[in-house]
Amino acid sequence: MNHQDCFVIGVDFGTASVRAAVIRIADGLEVASATYKYRCGVDGCLHDPANPLVARQNPQDYLDGFAHTVREALATAAESGGVDKDKVLGIGFDTTGSTILPVLRDGTPLVFLDDFANNQNAHIWLWKDHSAWAEAEEITATAKALRPEYLDLVGGIYSSEWYWSKVLHCLHVDRQVFARAFTWIEVADWLLFTLTGGSDVAEAVRAICPAGHKALFDRDWGGYPADDFLAALSPDLVGLKKTLDPERVRHAGTSGFMLSREWTEKFGLPKPVMVAIPAFDAHYGGIGAGIKPGILVKTIGTSTCDLMVSPLSRGKLIVPGMAGIVRDSILPDYYGIEAGQSAVGDIFNWFVNIVRPCNRSYGDLSAEAAALRPGESGLLALDWMNGNRTILVDQRLSGLILGLTLHSKPGEIYRALIEATAFGARVIHDQMEANGLPIDKIIVCGGIPRKDRLFMQIYADIVNKPLYISRNSETCALGGAIAAAVITGAYPGFETAIERMTGVLDLVYRPIPEHVAIYERIYALYRQMHDSFCSSGNVGDLSRVMKDLMDIKDETSRRNETAPSTIAAKERQGRRILPVEALRTI
Amino acid sequence: MNHQDCFVIGVDFGTASVRAAVIRIADGLEVASATYKYRCGVDGCLHDPANPLVARQNPQDYLDGFAHTVREALATAAESGGVDKDKVLGIGFDTTGSTILPVLRDGTPLVFLDDFANNQNAHIWLWKDHSAWAEAEEITATAKALRPEYLDLVGGIYSSEWYWSKVLHCLHVDRQVFARAFTWIEVADWLLFTLTGGSDVAEAVRAICPAGHKALFDRDWGGYPADDFLAALSPDLVGLKKTLDPERVRHAGTSGFMLSREWTEKFGLPKPVMVAIPAFDAHYGGIGAGIKPGILVKTIGTSTCDLMVSPLSRGKLIVPGMAGIVRDSILPDYYGIEAGQSAVGDIFNWFVNIVRPCNRSYGDLSAEAAALRPGESGLLALDWMNGNRTILVDQRLSGLILGLTLHSKPGEIYRALIEATAFGARVIHDQMEANGLPIDKIIVCGGIPRKDRLFMQIYADIVNKPLYISRNSETCALGGAIAAAVITGAYPGFETAIERMTGVLDLVYRPIPEHVAIYERIYALYRQMHDSFCSSGNVGDLSRVMKDLMDIKDETSRRNETAPSTIAAKERQGRRILPVEALRTI
Repeated sequence: MNHQDCFVIGVDFGTASVRAAVIRIADGLEVASATYKYRCGVDGCLHDPANPLVARQNPQDYLDGFAHTVREALATAAESGGVDKDKVLGIGFDTTGSTILPVLRDGTPLVFLDDFANNQNAHIWLWKDHSAWAEAEEITATAKALRPEYLDLVGGIYSSEWYWSKVLHCLHVDRQVFARAFTWIEVADWLLFTLTGGSDVAEAVRAICPAGHKALFDRDWGGYPADDFLAALSPDLVGLKKTLDPERVRHAGTSGFMLSREWTEKFGLPKPVMVAIPAFDAHYGGIGAGIKPGILVKTIGTSTCDLMVSPLSRGKLIVPGMAGIVRDSILPDYYGIEAGQSAVGDIFNWFVNIVRPCNRSYGDLSAEAAALRPGESGLLALDWMNGNRTILVDQRLSGLILGLTLHSKPGEIYRALIEATAFGARVIHDQMEANGLPIDKIIVCGGIPRKDRLFMQIYADIVNKPLYISRNSETCALGGAIAAAVITGAYPGFETAIERMTGVLDLVYRPIPEHVAIYERIYALYRQMHDSFCSSGNVGDLSRVMKDLMDIKDETSRRNETAPSTIAAKERQGRRILPVEALRTI
Repeated sequence: MNHQDCFVIGVDFGTASVRAAVIRIADGLEVASATYKYRCGVDGCLHDPANPLVARQNPQDYLDGFAHTVREALATAAESGGVDKDKVLGIGFDTTGSTILPVLRDGTPLVFLDDFANNQNAHIWLWKDHSAWAEAEEITATAKALRPEYLDLVGGIYSSEWYWSKVLHCLHVDRQVFARAFTWIEVADWLLFTLTGGSDVAEAVRAICPAGHKALFDRDWGGYPADDFLAALSPDLVGLKKTLDPERVRHAGTSGFMLSREWTEKFGLPKPVMVAIPAFDAHYGGIGAGIKPGILVKTIGTSTCDLMVSPLSRGKLIVPGMAGIVRDSILPDYYGIEAGQSAVGDIFNWFVNIVRPCNRSYGDLSAEAAALRPGESGLLALDWMNGNRTILVDQRLSGLILGLTLHSKPGEIYRALIEATAFGARVIHDQMEANGLPIDKIIVCGGIPRKDRLFMQIYADIVNKPLYISRNSETCALGGAIAAAVITGAYPGFETAIERMTGVLDLVYRPIPEHVAIYERIYALYRQMHDSFCSSGNVGDLSRVMKDLMDIKDETSRRNETAPSTIAAKERQGRRILPVEALRTI
């Protein structure tokens, strides 16, 4: 059988739903897809009314969603695409992360036991659960004291979203759950264990992507963190570490894992197929978007994920503030570098849906914002409404809007919020380029790039690079499918598979030089604010920030071109003119 | 005739309308009143679509309004109050300022000439006209170099709203108008000149209040600013100064000015009465509210004016940043001290009417804000949406909101804006008390105090003093009436007249200690922001501002009282507890 005539399945577990796609190996074409919304809680997320930081899920949603979407996508592919199920060679999938759950030794989630069915701590702890912020600080402090090299791997600060923070928080607040669990496992690894018919979690394979990016795994220090480090946090963590086998950590190019009989049936496949080692959604998204050295892949949605790869031959990179730099984590034989912004679309959602200025829609606000020149709003915002993931790695920062006057309009504020997220992106890009990761090209994917032209142009102007848009709008599932294609031998490696199965649209957003010139000046002010309010507390002189913004506003404002204030400003610069004609009579 | 059985008239020229009141001398009772809205432009204000800084008026509105309101108030007093017009002894009035106009030698406004009828620069330049901001900077710089003592009088910075800035701006942009005018005069002085039948403006009496607070008049340096100082700005200003007679500057206690025959008729009075020297609205408002040493009078409306008096015997005060400290300007034989905030109610108007969050009304937002505890919003704002009058005297500052999250609600932002204006007030109070002006009692008047209980309680909690409300809601006209009563000899002086003719309501807003404790902490953060963003640019470490606000939010938030984040915070403080019971199950 010629592999090129065959198909693979990619499955993307998001925060609220799961989506499966049947992909043609030859060119990455999506033949069919199916979606399933999680049933528990609100959009699949279980909240605690007493603590807004808590976000949990039910593993049953993952099992139901997996079976349902793959079966349905295959059925559609067979019916409308004429795909022969025999020609499906493999399956790859991704999840969010660190999204972890406590399980028994046989892999049963604790929450499936009657005793724990109603305990929120026995559920899946979703990536965006921030209840462990104090533990994150404790882990960071302990690492600084005992193992500073751990922090180099994660950008200097360990996050509340990550494995050890969450486990330690459970230890602090619910010892019963901790004691009953054999181990804690990423939902991605648990799904692999389940799909491949595992019976003992002690022998479960764990993917390098979550292990390296979230659990401080690195072969340079023998795998998981050292016992003395964990013991300083809690002796119980040393016990937990014994359940994690460093010899069973694998990257996405690893073949040999087969779908169990049970799941072959559930999926409606005629025979077992290969299963790829999973990765986090953004990582497989990077593959689906066409990642390679020199290309920055940005997935822009409610939040943002930035990915780059660097060949092992260029040596181990240290980029301060990057949330993760992990060998083999995106592509085998490359360092995978992950950065991100903790809120982008979510900030616009907040403004439109919670502030609801003048009941304006996105379209109204976008039209008002589009009518403004760069700098004309006079506003400057910090995009920290959900903290800062990169380069500050600090959940306890907040949003800021500056330059407000009694005339500031909703469309002006909306534009300032878009600009703020673009400035936040620019900080990340600058940090990458200053630390050995030159960016030749940016490919964007996610929900916003295809539908918001204003957003895209502002981004191009502020990051000052052309922006390409991924051809496939569902890059995560495509990335999983590419991994499946590689492990089945359809391509000699990821490089070729990516070359053949991905692409970009013809539409390219290019920086407009006049806009770039103004935004460079505003970015300098953004950076000054950024560096002043962050924890490292660069002590800077902020006395010019408001005045510089007003100067830029005066210069860029259309209506002021012949106004006395401009004339007076020119006079101050030494050109004494008496432009009576410029004054309008009443 | 017993003066105590008699009446006086107070007339208050506001920005959009004028109001006259007939007042009983014995107790300050208002017997009748009448109002007249200016006819020209929008609410009496002429705007320049090409320059939002321009705000002009037509002097005809003042003449028409004066005649109309006094005549109507007297008619109403006679009809419904049984007031015998023979028992009206005097009239006092106030205007806004610096509100100036160019006039011919006979007092005719330039705009009354056909050649200038359509020239906006020949109109009245309203106090809030900020087109002369560059000239204000030039005057400040020149004074710093040549006559630093001038700046002590005005708080360190000369404002774009004031006499010399406006005149100099006209010189720069419209020499024709400047050349044609004999002099420039405050509208208050021009009205006095007009009412008393003046024929030569070179001999016009000028009130000390505008001269001292806006035109750098001080007897310590022989009256108006020195020739070399004015020449450094423009030789033409030296010529203008020759039209201002320093020997004819008078305070509010000066008697001897009689209404002309013409205006006696226009007002419908049986015989000429005495006319008091006018003052600015807020100053007569201070008198009407009951000012005396140790009492701070705050007039709170769209903007705010703060007034205090200090006996001459205590020596000349220098309070950095106070917009004016002028001998005899409020009460004879006292220094008058004026401060203020350039936007208070205007900030709430902006939020409700321009941002229009969720289409909420003032009442809705106020109810949401009232449901919050101090600190619970997690927000901190700077009240500089219209610049900062006191203590920074800087028009080129802007508003700021910090602490925003994806959950920040309109009511929370609204409360933060109220708090910001209260913090701004607190800065002024602290500056006064630190510089020889102890505040024993605060009396508030103006539009907001009587109708907004939340605002008043927040103010009491933040300024940490009880707030009394002036009994008379129209304190400016009452102040003018009190001046009229004093010059007619009804009382031996202002002290007795104020004692008898003013008072406060029973309703007092007192600080709530628990609120004070939290607001003291937030005020420290406000002050840090204030000092970092102002021109003098105190270089400070802002790295804790966002985190401290979050800590305060965590502490004060009702819902978080048993939440893991609070527990974790306690754990961090060394008290290791395992409060499983505090965790709610899903």
